[in-house]
Amino acid sequence: MEENLYHLQYAMDTFYFLVCGALVMWMAAGFAMLESGLVRAKNTTEILAKNVGMFAIACIMYLVCGYAIMYGGEIFLSGIGDVDASKVLGEYAEREDGFTGGSIYSTAADFFFQVVFVATAVSITSGAVAERMKLWPFLLFTVVMTGFIYPMEGSWTWGGNDVFGLFNLGDLGFSDFAGSGIVHLAGASAALAGVLLLGARKGKYGPNGEINAITGANLPLATLGMFILWMGWFGFNGGSVLKLGDIDNANAVAMVFLNTNTAAAGGLVAALIVARLLFGKADLTMALNGALAGLVAITAGPDTPSALGATIIGALGGVLVVFSILGLDKLKIDDPVGAISVHGSAGILGLLAVPFTNSDASFVGQIVGALTIFVWVFGVSLLVWFIIKLVFGIRVSEEEEFEGVDLSECGMEAYPEFTRSK
Amino acid sequence: MEENLYHLQYAMDTFYFLVCGALVMWMAAGFAMLESGLVRAKNTTEILAKNVGMFAIACIMYLVCGYAIMYGGEIFLSGIGDVDASKVLGEYAEREDGFTGGSIYSTAADFFFQVVFVATAVSITSGAVAERMKLWPFLLFTVVMTGFIYPMEGSWTWGGNDVFGLFNLGDLGFSDFAGSGIVHLAGASAALAGVLLLGARKGKYGPNGEINAITGANLPLATLGMFILWMGWFGFNGGSVLKLGDIDNANAVAMVFLNTNTAAAGGLVAALIVARLLFGKADLTMALNGALAGLVAITAGPDTPSALGATIIGALGGVLVVFSILGLDKLKIDDPVGAISVHGSAGILGLLAVPFTNSDASFVGQIVGALTIFVWVFGVSLLVWFIIKLVFGIRVSEEEEFEGVDLSECGMEAYPEFTRSK
Amino acid sequence: MEENLYHLQYAMDTFYFLVCGALVMWMAAGFAMLESGLVRAKNTTEILAKNVGMFAIACIMYLVCGYAIMYGGEIFLSGIGDVDASKVLGEYAEREDGFTGGSIYSTAADFFFQVVFVATAVSITSGAVAERMKLWPFLLFTVVMTGFIYPMEGSWTWGGNDVFGLFNLGDLGFSDFAGSGIVHLAGASAALAGVLLLGARKGKYGPNGEINAITGANLPLATLGMFILWMGWFGFNGGSVLKLGDIDNANAVAMVFLNTNTAAAGGLVAALIVARLLFGKADLTMALNGALAGLVAITAGPDTPSALGATIIGALGGVLVVFSILGLDKLKIDDPVGAISVHGSAGILGLLAVPFTNSDASFVGQIVGALTIFVWVFGVSLLVWFIIKLVFGIRVSEEEEFEGVDLSECGMEAYPEFTRSK
Repeated sequence: MEENLYHLQYAMDTFYFLVCGALVMWMAAGFAMLESGLVRAKNTTEILAKNVGMFAIACIMYLVCGYAIMYGGEIFLSGIGDVDASKVLGEYAEREDGFTGGSIYSTAADFFFQVVFVATAVSITSGAVAERMKLWPFLLFTVVMTGFIYPMEGSWTWGGNDVFGLFNLGDLGFSDFAGSGIVHLAGASAALAGVLLLGARKGKYGPNGEINAITGANLPLATLGMFILWMGWFGFNGGSVLKLGDIDNANAVAMVFLNTNTAAAGGLVAALIVARLLFGKADLTMALNGALAGLVAITAGPDTPSALGATIIGALGGVLVVFSILGLDKLKIDDPVGAISVHGSAGILGLLAVPFTNSDASFVGQIVGALTIFVWVFGVSLLVWFIIKLVFGIRVSEEEEFEGVDLSECGMEAYPEFTRSK
Repeated sequence: MEENLYHLQYAMDTFYFLVCGALVMWMAAGFAMLESGLVRAKNTTEILAKNVGMFAIACIMYLVCGYAIMYGGEIFLSGIGDVDASKVLGEYAEREDGFTGGSIYSTAADFFFQVVFVATAVSITSGAVAERMKLWPFLLFTVVMTGFIYPMEGSWTWGGNDVFGLFNLGDLGFSDFAGSGIVHLAGASAALAGVLLLGARKGKYGPNGEINAITGANLPLATLGMFILWMGWFGFNGGSVLKLGDIDNANAVAMVFLNTNTAAAGGLVAALIVARLLFGKADLTMALNGALAGLVAITAGPDTPSALGATIIGALGGVLVVFSILGLDKLKIDDPVGAISVHGSAGILGLLAVPFTNSDASFVGQIVGALTIFVWVFGVSLLVWFIIKLVFGIRVSEEEEFEGVDLSECGMEAYPEFTRSK
Repeated sequence: MEENLYHLQYAMDTFYFLVCGALVMWMAAGFAMLESGLVRAKNTTEILAKNVGMFAIACIMYLVCGYAIMYGGEIFLSGIGDVDASKVLGEYAEREDGFTGGSIYSTAADFFFQVVFVATAVSITSGAVAERMKLWPFLLFTVVMTGFIYPMEGSWTWGGNDVFGLFNLGDLGFSDFAGSGIVHLAGASAALAGVLLLGARKGKYGPNGEINAITGANLPLATLGMFILWMGWFGFNGGSVLKLGDIDNANAVAMVFLNTNTAAAGGLVAALIVARLLFGKADLTMALNGALAGLVAITAGPDTPSALGATIIGALGGVLVVFSILGLDKLKIDDPVGAISVHGSAGILGLLAVPFTNSDASFVGQIVGALTIFVWVFGVSLLVWFIIKLVFGIRVSEEEEFEGVDLSECGMEAYPEFTRSK
């Protein structure tokens, strides 16, 4: 009987992970739709190819070495370059034996849930470098990002390892429930490094300080992408409770769903109102980014605030993202989809909001954690982008940029029958 | 041991609610895609902005006061204007103690499931008033609709309260399983009130009684929206069993999934055939509306019919919706996406079909219930629309309508590179 | 207490089926988006109408007779023509009593899960015959396919019946976990028969052996379709474990999710690289088809390979699909979306890969099984298509094909405001 109960709980927790993981995988479609809706028609095929390519690469690299680096220990030592996945999974199984009071579920489910997170982190970067970066160098960067940069950073946070043996973020009171910093700020930091080396799109900034709006080609797609991300975020945050199968955990999962939803709503409404006050119109793209910023902001701590508190955290994210997008444009940091603002600025906000409702987190820990993530991911990414730039180049030619990267990189237009001139 | 079993059942029922709730949230994307596919390109950004805005508003208003009005009791008295959500959720927790033999699950999950329903109700309205209504007055209406009109009506039905202390719908044999009336007819009633005050789009009806077809700009999007709604409806109806964790309830949930699916199929095929007989072609938009009408029709009682019965109920909805759309056009009631027919006409059909398979429901109860919902929602909506019209105006200028509401309301086109003329 | 445990396990397994079934239903949207993205604008409404129509028809025909033929026994004898679904479902309930050690769950959930599989099988065909086949004859074929051809074939495989009383595929060591052959090869075989009778699109093959590329009109939609299918496949393969509620089965479900994901990733990357080597560009449509081929290839045995093994099986599918698409074009077999290659070629590969990791499967069994499926489905489909061609005709006129089948079959364009000339 007790054995049977254990079986049921194990099955329930495993299924909960798998459902949440499938929702997070679905976020890949959200990023692809959001980004392809916000770029111009002539650069759409390439952003789609980047999105599908990097998602697949993330899945493979995390299997080959990323998971081992992030959670491994001995797996790290023996696992790198050892691509026998069954062995790696065998090691996971041994981990399971160590569990006594904690979460007990299929290690395959754990891997599945973790692998879609690294895919999310790297999905953030493609939008920021859109419309002028070469495709293959970008995919090469994603190999390093998903196989090394993110897993190292993850080993210091969710993995619990000391940062280069120097200090332990957890001991400092760092708390990042589902990854405002570990996933979103990390993705934004890599994106920022790429954008700085890449430069702005031709025509974005005029010689006299003009900032020219470059409108996305397909706003229904962008809206669909936002809704997909909103839905997928239930898995992203909800699954990060890591256990479902008793009353306390079930309540926590439910509260996380509720707070995730209401933070997105708060961010959307706040961005809509702020944009109305600033621009006089209902700015749809700001509203979309507001919802996403609300989601990013609540992600560091969706379990502890009240529903109203979560709404306010989300709303702060929605306000921040509008000013962050405007500010980056002032600095001539050209991010076509606003990814650095949504995931970076709102990610930091999310980390800093945690200590207000969670006594286990400290401001010192949150600041040190944010700095650690930023310095590591930004620094190493800058180095990797730089090496790739030297060896292969990262930017298409001026003529290719003018004609659209779809033709030069992919050899096919996304909407061959629709656009007026090509 | 018994304690452990209770834990597992609680966790399972909570998770079931959360998964169903996430599916219902996903319906918001379905409405946004359906409506943006069925309007003209020049009015697409605005309908998207309305859809995302009203969803977010619904989530916040229902948190602030809607849930309290609908299910509250003392919460109603103390909760209005008291925006401390943790307190409101504390009250939910007390409700839970009262459960003995009924459903026991996280109150946060209950709130999450309920809040996406009110978002569905208000999503119905935006399509009917598309292409000529101002954005901000519309969003103002949704504040009242989601914070007051729907919750009041919900308190008399699922909330179990007497209607103004006069009579009790449940005692009369009113039965509306997942909301053919409570959600769909309610949304359609609010939409009808708006459409009547707003008038038809310019050019829709000619001076000699001509009815001019105005085709949607993007039928793949509309089809995607229908599929999203179909999928989300499994959560809408399936979650309305309110419990999963024993054999009888699990069977009921499974039967509801099956019947929901087959009713949609029946509605689609019936509308496709009727439209073929009437127009000589395979009318895709009628087929989409047929599927949705089938879904609306089965929603009042998806648990009691056989699968074949559900197919027939859905098919009747599919037939009805074609004639309802044609009939409203005869009356010059201009509903660009057919929302009043899909949710109103098929909603009433659904209510009236229940007593045939469910002996707990009576025709008197269903008729009184439908009338109560319609009179209340239509009446109060008409008043609210009217006041908003007086104070702010609800219709864009003729020139703005000609140019497209995207430019006047949102300042950006949905497809800036695609359309030939502006 | 033991009774309660049984209740919980029953509820959990039922819910697992329903969630997986909803994901498989969602694949219908994936096929619709993929196919409408890969055809030309002028043929988009019709492919959408075919997709929604055939999905609905599949749901109804499988209810009326398909399920009875596939799993029925006495149901087969008494059920055909007897459209009282409650009776048929009564029979399902009796089946349940027979279960002792196996999976125990709601028979309605079982039906729901099975019905979305037949819809998948038939969804494969529409893409291959796109852009020149009449709509109503196609829907007539789907009536026969979903009500008879697929259920007969299913009765010899998952149903366990002898093939015409001659031999038993299971006894020969045939193993097809989730349907690389039973669903995907079957759909491709029906499609091939249709394509052969239909002929190529005008202009596809030039008089001097030229193969003209005909680009899809909307690649973001095609990409969305791929992502939807990828997501839905978790339900397709994951649900095919048929049970969740103990540790062994939960581990199996988790491993199937992991392997399904990684096979898709392997297929995508492999096709992207092969296409780069062959064409010099990042070919997005090949990448999409590579992911789908990886998914089809792993479907016959997602439970037994290691994660790395699954990645390799998927990658082989991705390589194969590129050459298969090129090869069919050499043979002037015109398949606008590559469905025959994705589901047929990769389906056979998937069947042949099983014995390498699953000792219960034999190569003889796999080959005999693949032949049985192909000969039956291709042969009967050819006959049915031929009869339909004689009686109604299956191909639109040359002028209709030139103008686009949307106008002749559906009377409405999919993007009336977007395309340059019509």
